[in-house]
Amino acid sequence: MNHLRILARNSLRRRDFSLRSPSRSFCNLSPESNRPSYGIAFDIDGVILLGSSPVGGSPGALRRLYDDSGALKIPFLFLTNGGGLPESARASEMSQLLGLHVSPLQVVQGHSPFWKLVNRFGNELVVAAGKGEPAAVMSNYGFKNVISMDEYASCFDHIDPLAPYKKWMTGQDGHKEPRSRENLLSHRVHAAFIVSDPVDWSRDIQVLCDILRTGGLPGKEIGPQPHLYFANDDLDYQTAFPTERLGMGAFRIALESIFNRIHGNPLEYTSFGKPNPFVFKNAEDVLKEIASSTHSHSGSHDFRTLYMIGDNPKIDIRGARQAGNPWFSILTRTGVFKGKDNHAEFPADLVVDTAEEAVDFILTRESAKQSLL
Amino acid sequence: MNHLRILARNSLRRRDFSLRSPSRSFCNLSPESNRPSYGIAFDIDGVILLGSSPVGGSPGALRRLYDDSGALKIPFLFLTNGGGLPESARASEMSQLLGLHVSPLQVVQGHSPFWKLVNRFGNELVVAAGKGEPAAVMSNYGFKNVISMDEYASCFDHIDPLAPYKKWMTGQDGHKEPRSRENLLSHRVHAAFIVSDPVDWSRDIQVLCDILRTGGLPGKEIGPQPHLYFANDDLDYQTAFPTERLGMGAFRIALESIFNRIHGNPLEYTSFGKPNPFVFKNAEDVLKEIASSTHSHSGSHDFRTLYMIGDNPKIDIRGARQAGNPWFSILTRTGVFKGKDNHAEFPADLVVDTAEEAVDFILTRESAKQSLL
Repeated sequence: MNHLRILARNSLRRRDFSLRSPSRSFCNLSPESNRPSYGIAFDIDGVILLGSSPVGGSPGALRRLYDDSGALKIPFLFLTNGGGLPESARASEMSQLLGLHVSPLQVVQGHSPFWKLVNRFGNELVVAAGKGEPAAVMSNYGFKNVISMDEYASCFDHIDPLAPYKKWMTGQDGHKEPRSRENLLSHRVHAAFIVSDPVDWSRDIQVLCDILRTGGLPGKEIGPQPHLYFANDDLDYQTAFPTERLGMGAFRIALESIFNRIHGNPLEYTSFGKPNPFVFKNAEDVLKEIASSTHSHSGSHDFRTLYMIGDNPKIDIRGARQAGNPWFSILTRTGVFKGKDNHAEFPADLVVDTAEEAVDFILTRESAKQSLL
Repeated sequence: MNHLRILARNSLRRRDFSLRSPSRSFCNLSPESNRPSYGIAFDIDGVILLGSSPVGGSPGALRRLYDDSGALKIPFLFLTNGGGLPESARASEMSQLLGLHVSPLQVVQGHSPFWKLVNRFGNELVVAAGKGEPAAVMSNYGFKNVISMDEYASCFDHIDPLAPYKKWMTGQDGHKEPRSRENLLSHRVHAAFIVSDPVDWSRDIQVLCDILRTGGLPGKEIGPQPHLYFANDDLDYQTAFPTERLGMGAFRIALESIFNRIHGNPLEYTSFGKPNPFVFKNAEDVLKEIASSTHSHSGSHDFRTLYMIGDNPKIDIRGARQAGNPWFSILTRTGVFKGKDNHAEFPADLVVDTAEEAVDFILTRESAKQSLL
């Protein structure tokens, strides 16, 4: 997991990222407002949305963080382990679902750290797997030779013995020009990125085993394992179904236990996403940038408090606790956590029912602080 | 695995099974032929077929086991861990692919032993998963309240969070009348049968975890685990792709490692198929019945030799060796095994390149024996 350390050290500077994001200017704080001394990070699934429906009064709660002109009053962002769309596309989606204006800078997804690996794999052949538009996400980060698992697998005859029983949605990924198939078959895959939850587990586990056992040349001899990166390691997450659904962590367990059974050397991989502390350090940097984005001097800006609002004790609360000061963790009951009292193993600083209650608590607490100054 | 023992003790009497098979009469030995003192069991994948193409000169080799009138001269059957179609349908399929007449009695599949469990689950709600027509297979065995995983999962909203990204072939399973959905949701699933290789792993692992954790009521409280049966435990098998493809055993590993991570008690299950010795005992009984099928007195008939022709040392050869006398194991190089010499861990009695060579060896050997009598 050395990559995590590297990423933690020179934590992701979102400015670099926003250089590639046309929409940076959209994110502007109300000039009237004093520079705020706090910021908020919201988990999405189980806090803001259940499936694609708002939950816990989230639209109203978020609206209180903007002024009447629609400019951002309180710096906040969405800190999710989910993904599958470029940050700009996800921001538009969230804006639509919530009836607010969300900037791409306010969307930090599980795969957002992948762009940091462009230096290493920017020109190499890499495979991107998962729902949505995994290859578009990676191209957007600057990877020049990325192919989606859908397209890659389709280049190999008989690689998926179950293919005759499947009818996949095609063209869901963002590749314009079809590639030379022969060209692909002879080129070594240098890394595989699990950008979002894989859809076709049987094919993806099969093809990943093929890639990882052969040094990146399916059907060929055993070779050194190419690199493997997961956007997160969430075992499960809350949707509209009464009980949690299996996530990318479950896919990782399935792939790892099969790979370790058929291959001599155990699977090597790196997982990103919460609860890794560098994710929270990165979120702090992004919130600083959001806070500074409309001020002439974008010098250092220290927050007295950063609030993490999440539904998953093992992921959101644990992560915020590990990150330590200035993080303050708030656990909602709209998602994975449904307990009456606090969580035993990873207790939050505060437990509330909904995101609405959380925002209400934050605004009351912060204005009380103001009045004391 | 107590079921294996039960099944091994009163080993599957194929006569009971053939009572439900209209095509039993199709299987008749040439009256002219002396009652043969040997029989042959052929594995299918990697020995007779690669994918859906004949391999190793199998059609010609099998034709030598019939007389000029097309009647069976030498009792043989297909002993495969594969499945997904009723024995009668698979027999027609094999007849077409090989240009021979194959009787349902000559097709013993991984799931064939499931019919023995009708006594136990014949009237209970059971779920059948896998490619092909898993529910039709089970109905054919006499299960009166069986539902395919496809149909069962479709009754629960949001049970598969990845469903919006999937387009499945519909109507591939044999259910005529649609069921009352409410009726299903309130009924406990008593057992799950993995009839053939599952196609949609992410959904099937999710829904099986839901069924198995809740005592058969997805979305409800934790309950005692319903029974779980696998038609085989093959880690991998040979197809037209250069290297082995993952099989039902790999699916079992994925399900088990995820289930054991999210649930308190380890997964309990029973696997059928080769190399279990009772499969070979059952094959012997079926071959006896085939041999006796055109003789007035269908009394006991003992074979001096039974030949198992397979491509997988771990499954076919290991199984025949464990079964012992009168089994003689022949390993081909058209499938999983590609070695120059014999397999180190599970050496066969004979190693040949193809099924054609195997049949040639058997016929020569047996006619030599005849001439010695």
